[in-house]
Amino acid sequence: MPALTFHIEATCPVTGARAGTLHTPHGPIPTPVFMPVGTQATVKGLTQRHLADDLNARIILGNTYHLYLRPGHESIDKLGGLHRFMNWDRAILTDSGGFQAFSLSQLTKINDDGVLFSSHLNGDRHLFTPESTVDTQLALGSDIAMVLDECLPYPSSHEHSRVSMERTLRWAARGMDHFHRRMAESPRRQHRPDPLPQALFPIVQGSMYPDLRSECAQRLAALDAEGYAIGGLSVGEPRALSMEMTEATVPHLPVLRPRYVMGVGTPEELPEYVARGIDMMDCVMPSRNARNGCLFTSRGKLIIKNARYKEDPRPPDEACSCFTCSHYSRAYLRHLFLAGEILYSTLATLHNLSRYLDIMRAIRQAIVLGAFPKYLDSVRSQPVEDPS
Amino acid sequence: MPALTFHIEATCPVTGARAGTLHTPHGPIPTPVFMPVGTQATVKGLTQRHLADDLNARIILGNTYHLYLRPGHESIDKLGGLHRFMNWDRAILTDSGGFQAFSLSQLTKINDDGVLFSSHLNGDRHLFTPESTVDTQLALGSDIAMVLDECLPYPSSHEHSRVSMERTLRWAARGMDHFHRRMAESPRRQHRPDPLPQALFPIVQGSMYPDLRSECAQRLAALDAEGYAIGGLSVGEPRALSMEMTEATVPHLPVLRPRYVMGVGTPEELPEYVARGIDMMDCVMPSRNARNGCLFTSRGKLIIKNARYKEDPRPPDEACSCFTCSHYSRAYLRHLFLAGEILYSTLATLHNLSRYLDIMRAIRQAIVLGAFPKYLDSVRSQPVEDPS
Repeated sequence: MPALTFHIEATCPVTGARAGTLHTPHGPIPTPVFMPVGTQATVKGLTQRHLADDLNARIILGNTYHLYLRPGHESIDKLGGLHRFMNWDRAILTDSGGFQAFSLSQLTKINDDGVLFSSHLNGDRHLFTPESTVDTQLALGSDIAMVLDECLPYPSSHEHSRVSMERTLRWAARGMDHFHRRMAESPRRQHRPDPLPQALFPIVQGSMYPDLRSECAQRLAALDAEGYAIGGLSVGEPRALSMEMTEATVPHLPVLRPRYVMGVGTPEELPEYVARGIDMMDCVMPSRNARNGCLFTSRGKLIIKNARYKEDPRPPDEACSCFTCSHYSRAYLRHLFLAGEILYSTLATLHNLSRYLDIMRAIRQAIVLGAFPKYLDSVRSQPVEDPS
Repeated sequence: MPALTFHIEATCPVTGARAGTLHTPHGPIPTPVFMPVGTQATVKGLTQRHLADDLNARIILGNTYHLYLRPGHESIDKLGGLHRFMNWDRAILTDSGGFQAFSLSQLTKINDDGVLFSSHLNGDRHLFTPESTVDTQLALGSDIAMVLDECLPYPSSHEHSRVSMERTLRWAARGMDHFHRRMAESPRRQHRPDPLPQALFPIVQGSMYPDLRSECAQRLAALDAEGYAIGGLSVGEPRALSMEMTEATVPHLPVLRPRYVMGVGTPEELPEYVARGIDMMDCVMPSRNARNGCLFTSRGKLIIKNARYKEDPRPPDEACSCFTCSHYSRAYLRHLFLAGEILYSTLATLHNLSRYLDIMRAIRQAIVLGAFPKYLDSVRSQPVEDPS
């Protein structure tokens, strides 16, 4: 039984941007969608009520690496799965954990078996395989799970990138095989009495080589997965290159499946990816930048510590109707930031995520109205710097 | 024009505990009341919506010392006062700042003029006088302001305590005089077009000497203030002594004015102070202990990091209906605590303050129903340790 159904409701004839609805076992998701990152079973600083009622987020992301290490996917499984554990009854996507195993750990060893790494918490050795990461994500119960892939640093040679891509393809096949076996088991292994169906997305790699990206996409498409991701972008390359890789990949992915670019992007990049046929994105940028004092507004970035906001009674963004902008001034947020108060992180994260989700809603509406090219023109001319 | 009217609706004939309503320019406050502490214009970790909608807090406390130093009372005044600055339209009580000037600063010098201290933020020298602290609190616009007093360490000699008490009495008279002059000024000095009336409470001192406490209370009563506070308790003395000092003080305060014990107490102490005729209390304990991993429950303290909660699906307190207990498990809170997540502080603070406010509501109901002595018996036999 498939976990997802994806209806494309409108496609921009000029760009190929799509507006649709992705139906999951935990509710529908209007696309294109930006997914807030909830690394450790929490979107930092927000209650689940903020996420649902204030932001109307329909899907959030969890990080398998972190949850595997703490509190442990088996504990989460016993407690009824990640949705119940964190009291979130809308959709969840989990990554495979591979990216964090590479980037957060010391002593990572990679071979065809999988990824051997040391926990960043206590140094314990762990092995992620294409099969184990599927099992971990089945225990978490995410609506959308990701296959284990190898994410290369930038730059990498063509030769190395091909070798790595071949491994990613083998892992994808192993992960999918294992996933289908698990899905067919009855009863399933989870502790939950009636586990819901889950989906598994393979990930296109190929570093910054269009030929590898195209080939990888074509060969993964043969797996007939419920959706596809593009990984290995936003690893330090110029933005033009990220876009070029997306353009090399998308035409080779099945039209009727959702397409997810992992780990992007800035507010300005969101419509650019959508314009290249992307349906799903995630990034820590809105939440992390919020905590660091950078607010995204309709007039550009606002650096809240700046002295000019000391007695500024205006909301961060006068055009924004989020909870933060409806209730609090720049002066108050600046005070909370300088005083190191928790409430600052909450209010700033709420605003930045609201900004991202508003952008996605505006993009979707523009596509539905057939006005996406015009929308794209207008946002390309917007300022990105600190407003006065 | 007085700022407050206080209606006593029921008095326990056995203990003298009172249930009433304190009407302020920012709404009515059922008493006895516990006031959450919002040191830096925020109750740490909570949005004002949590405070109003989840907790139904009617009054919170702000710390003048902190707000004076950052962002500065003049900035807050220009921004419309503390209520508007922090978007809180219910009542606010501010302390004088003296206590923090003693306890947080190095190089404090005290003489009859006032308190000379160095900012804990940058070492700058500042002077608080009985007059200046009134002006600072008028700029903040708190509904209830406090006079500058001298808070002694425990133990202090009788001789020193008398000298200090005399100073506190002189400062109270100076503060009240200054306050009345300011209130009579037209137009008032604040930037707000139509400032609301404010009240000023003197503070009873006298260390741990019943004769000094009684005398101080009698002499302050002559000032005919809108309410009275008892300060200098919870400074390290045995709890029996705090209670004895309260008993020595209360009979000498005007019956028809609200009585406020500053900086107390534990959940078990709340009804004890009420039983001694106290109407108002505040303490950082529920919020600070929450952040440190201690949850107050109807079955005693719960130390959330304990391993036994790792897979415990129960809420912190099965008898509690707060947002945290309605939505989250001990296992999830333990995970958030160990992971250092902001959301832990929010959820734990929400629960602990809910516990405190629930206790006060239960106390009030017991008094109104004429059942307070029975209530007191029942809570005196409750456990205070970690429930299983």
